[in-house]
Amino acid sequence: MKRKSIHRFTVRTILMMTLVGTVRAGTGDFDRSLLAVFQPLPSEMPSADNPITSEKITLGRMLYYEKRLSRDRQTSCNSCHQLSAYGVDNQQFSSGFKGQLGSRNSPTVYNAAQHIAQFWDGRAEDVEEQAKGPVLNPVEMAMPMPDKVVETLKSIPGYVDAFAKAFPKEEQAITYDNMAKAIGAFERKLVTPSRFDAFLVNDDNALTDDEKAGLKTFIEAGCITCHSGSGLGGHMYKKVGLAKPWPHLQDDGRFSVTNNEADKYLFKVPGLRNVEMTAPYMHDGSILTLEESIARMSVHQLGRQLSADQVESIATFLKSLTGEIPVDYIKEPTLPEDGPDTARVIQAINQSGTGT
Amino acid sequence: MKRKSIHRFTVRTILMMTLVGTVRAGTGDFDRSLLAVFQPLPSEMPSADNPITSEKITLGRMLYYEKRLSRDRQTSCNSCHQLSAYGVDNQQFSSGFKGQLGSRNSPTVYNAAQHIAQFWDGRAEDVEEQAKGPVLNPVEMAMPMPDKVVETLKSIPGYVDAFAKAFPKEEQAITYDNMAKAIGAFERKLVTPSRFDAFLVNDDNALTDDEKAGLKTFIEAGCITCHSGSGLGGHMYKKVGLAKPWPHLQDDGRFSVTNNEADKYLFKVPGLRNVEMTAPYMHDGSILTLEESIARMSVHQLGRQLSADQVESIATFLKSLTGEIPVDYIKEPTLPEDGPDTARVIQAINQSGTGT
Repeated sequence: MKRKSIHRFTVRTILMMTLVGTVRAGTGDFDRSLLAVFQPLPSEMPSADNPITSEKITLGRMLYYEKRLSRDRQTSCNSCHQLSAYGVDNQQFSSGFKGQLGSRNSPTVYNAAQHIAQFWDGRAEDVEEQAKGPVLNPVEMAMPMPDKVVETLKSIPGYVDAFAKAFPKEEQAITYDNMAKAIGAFERKLVTPSRFDAFLVNDDNALTDDEKAGLKTFIEAGCITCHSGSGLGGHMYKKVGLAKPWPHLQDDGRFSVTNNEADKYLFKVPGLRNVEMTAPYMHDGSILTLEESIARMSVHQLGRQLSADQVESIATFLKSLTGEIPVDYIKEPTLPEDGPDTARVIQAINQSGTGT
Repeated sequence: MKRKSIHRFTVRTILMMTLVGTVRAGTGDFDRSLLAVFQPLPSEMPSADNPITSEKITLGRMLYYEKRLSRDRQTSCNSCHQLSAYGVDNQQFSSGFKGQLGSRNSPTVYNAAQHIAQFWDGRAEDVEEQAKGPVLNPVEMAMPMPDKVVETLKSIPGYVDAFAKAFPKEEQAITYDNMAKAIGAFERKLVTPSRFDAFLVNDDNALTDDEKAGLKTFIEAGCITCHSGSGLGGHMYKKVGLAKPWPHLQDDGRFSVTNNEADKYLFKVPGLRNVEMTAPYMHDGSILTLEESIARMSVHQLGRQLSADQVESIATFLKSLTGEIPVDYIKEPTLPEDGPDTARVIQAINQSGTGT
């Protein structure tokens, strides 16, 4: 339902734009027909398999901040995907259990639920499936197995209530899948509309002239080949180094998921929403600045060298994608207290071997 | 003589600045005592061993543009160090004889004669010694040996005259050393004063408030540890990756010159004059943008992560170092025509093996 109505809105908007054509925009003209490849952000990113309810959101928000989902009670989803910092930790690689580092840069959780799939290599179909990964990853939250997560949650009376409310028809409300569904439901409303969306829906003054010029540069340089849609990315896989090999590439990318030679060095094209705030860049966090990312992408993906002015112009546009963080929605809730059994469960987990 | 008077001027300037102290600067104050590590560019960069004369300059300018100093008559000094493009070719590696690529990024020739030594690894003591290198380098101008260069020059009547005028007391005016001396003398006046110099000598309005703020960030971040003096660099060697190892470093740097373990990965600190215009950056041209260079330097040399705002602020300052190209001085002269023997000499060179 929701998805359909968003779709209708978008189509109407685009049609309208096309009819209006070039409009007076600030001191310069902007040909609105160029905008057809973009869509405004939806207000939420729904799923047929996991309908969003306020009870799931309430539970999912708690679980997102829940460090007891990690082996040493130190790490939550929010540790690496910090909601107050545009969904990232600004580290090259995030540190998890016992300070171990991952090997890919933590992507932002904002506006991610609409992506074609999750993780850089797309190995999880959706945010629900994604949420199950880090909890068990030995270098991240390092829980030994799903059962131990369920045991922990069951030991906390507040979660027994919250799961019962979120999954009222299920006899066994606390399951590993339901944990993931609640987190997923919460994440499906993590959207950050920006001035760019206002511009897309016809407010010509929502972008400055410099930003409009940057948008034009972005379009003309060919960035929209991959960075389009409402997320300006996230809807396809592309080979890193398509036009010119990427130096020192050590990660096979999607090949590790499919074992298909054609998927070697393919990664999900990241969305560019809030890109100004989510440094460092690339799957390996190897680039520190937005400018270098723009320049490198152009050389290695599109086979053309941009001038410093073009790079700056595109960066100026991209900064208009920095959206509003939903501060009330992401406010960390008071988490339920340990129950009488919680300490014992945690101790047992700590004495066990690690999982996966 | 010249050098002394420049020195006196600088000392007086600095003293004056210190006495004046904090001065009113635009809308903000700038503490001029912070400027003590900088000096304005001199009007020329003299050498006791190679006094600058107008005759040497006239000859050196011709030789700088002289493609007949290369094996295939395709490459001159100006091919890789383009005087109208701030002394560089904006390529990662320059291409020389038969399109072969070098393995280090061509540094700018502007303001270079005052550096501690020449080349990234300092293997030439001065610009005169430097000028002898590329002519014989098999992947650059690829002449087989100095004698063949001398033979070529002797076959061109215009050069016989020009060398005689430039080295009037020498019976054998056309020598490989004198070729280098003429080029060196020409290069010793390749200076590009900018608004920063005007600011240094007390014009508070020569920099904008944003540039002054950037200068302050540059100083406070510690960039001046290496980038000081009138060239903002060029006067010391430093290890690349001093604070944090540089990824994928393949070049030993100064170690290849001294064979001293302590010189491993040391490179001459590049001067930052015109840095805005001399991309790509680093000894290996591996960074495309000024912003990334700033961010990386801070992490790998100083051990601190700058914010995006700090990077931008420093970049804003560095752009004030873009100076005036001496357009009249660098104007390509009409080069003397081949003499009757020139074709034969060139042919013999082309049939010979390559040198060094």
